[in-house]
Amino acid sequence: MSSQAPKTPSPQDPRFAIIVAGGSGTRMGADRPKQFLKLRGEPVLVHTLRRFAAPELHVQRLVLVLPADQLAVWQELHQRYAPELAHEVVSGGATRWASVRQGLARLKEYSAGVVAVHDGVRPLTPLSVIESTYAAARQHGAAVAAVAPKDSVRGLSATGSYALDRSRLRLVQTPQCFELELLRRAYQLPELPTFTDDASVVEDLQHPIHLVPGDYRNLKITTPEDLLLAEALLG
Amino acid sequence: MSSQAPKTPSPQDPRFAIIVAGGSGTRMGADRPKQFLKLRGEPVLVHTLRRFAAPELHVQRLVLVLPADQLAVWQELHQRYAPELAHEVVSGGATRWASVRQGLARLKEYSAGVVAVHDGVRPLTPLSVIESTYAAARQHGAAVAAVAPKDSVRGLSATGSYALDRSRLRLVQTPQCFELELLRRAYQLPELPTFTDDASVVEDLQHPIHLVPGDYRNLKITTPEDLLLAEALLG
Repeated sequence: MSSQAPKTPSPQDPRFAIIVAGGSGTRMGADRPKQFLKLRGEPVLVHTLRRFAAPELHVQRLVLVLPADQLAVWQELHQRYAPELAHEVVSGGATRWASVRQGLARLKEYSAGVVAVHDGVRPLTPLSVIESTYAAARQHGAAVAAVAPKDSVRGLSATGSYALDRSRLRLVQTPQCFELELLRRAYQLPELPTFTDDASVVEDLQHPIHLVPGDYRNLKITTPEDLLLAEALLG
Repeated sequence: MSSQAPKTPSPQDPRFAIIVAGGSGTRMGADRPKQFLKLRGEPVLVHTLRRFAAPELHVQRLVLVLPADQLAVWQELHQRYAPELAHEVVSGGATRWASVRQGLARLKEYSAGVVAVHDGVRPLTPLSVIESTYAAARQHGAAVAAVAPKDSVRGLSATGSYALDRSRLRLVQTPQCFELELLRRAYQLPELPTFTDDASVVEDLQHPIHLVPGDYRNLKITTPEDLLLAEALLG
């Protein structure tokens, strides 16, 4: 089926992206939010936005959600490093959930289309992964990039731990793509502490989540080592 | 309790290590087994063995298990890069399980002690992680280094996938340390397809597996990106 999906979305089926960058950088031991750290001379966030702005993806609106106190810094970085990068900036909420909700509100005039939600600190996502996640969401309503764990996995129990079958587990990445109306409906429900990503929000509507092969290079920059690896991967 | 464990093992409680290196390098796209690839100018396996040979760990016997057709190459590499590194080499079996069994057989004159099983392609394990895993195994019989997943985790089901609580999951690393007699008993049972690591073998005896905090830098070199990151981490 997925081979029949058109490569170019029609005007009736526009694509949107919400890039969420809420980190404060404390886990990095850095003096600034990790989305602003330099990767090959440019802020991480510039790399991330560039991926989604790639013309072959046909993303119509690119919405960046940032903590209110980072808007001014970003404006400066944007002007300095990538003034050509068209996007709109929204100030985020107290949680990731609230931030995505703010991003969604910016798309309220649309009734159809597919929206990607993506971590601002995943600057290396291959375009092929983004494309296939959009395409799968168009077909299945909800699609998420994920990879199999490389390591054995154990569950914690009261008495210790137990082996799990890792071939039946997936580590979830972003992008996570959804029919716009579906994601909107999911974000009308109240926030739950079990919401760790957008898939879990949509799942709350009992909608099945389709998994798309992600990529091990699709790093989330959360530690200083991740930044080193990202540098190496771009080299 | 663990703070009461002696830092230096007594002669009645010797420490052993079995380093298993069975890879053929196909996943690396490299022309040689990944354990022989160069990391900062030295084979990965030299780095790994050096960790366990660190004097403060007091490891009494260091057993390296290698595929039979790699023994000659290793002998050359060993002579060239680390002739001072005392260890013994055993030829491995068809599976990881069979290889560990071969390594264990080399320790048959001992009845007490703690043995670590470690991946030959984990060259960056902090000594503190090795030390604490040995110490925990002495106390609990079986102890394994593990880290919490950084990503959301989903389980696969017939109809799609479902969210799992990642705070109750751990990604398993090595070293995996065991009372020698316990590991020996576990390896007397027949091999099962569910054996993905030594913890799962020992668990088959219904022995609880204690988890010790591992380290995200404790990389397993399985892809070219991993080697790049290891280079960066050693830099």
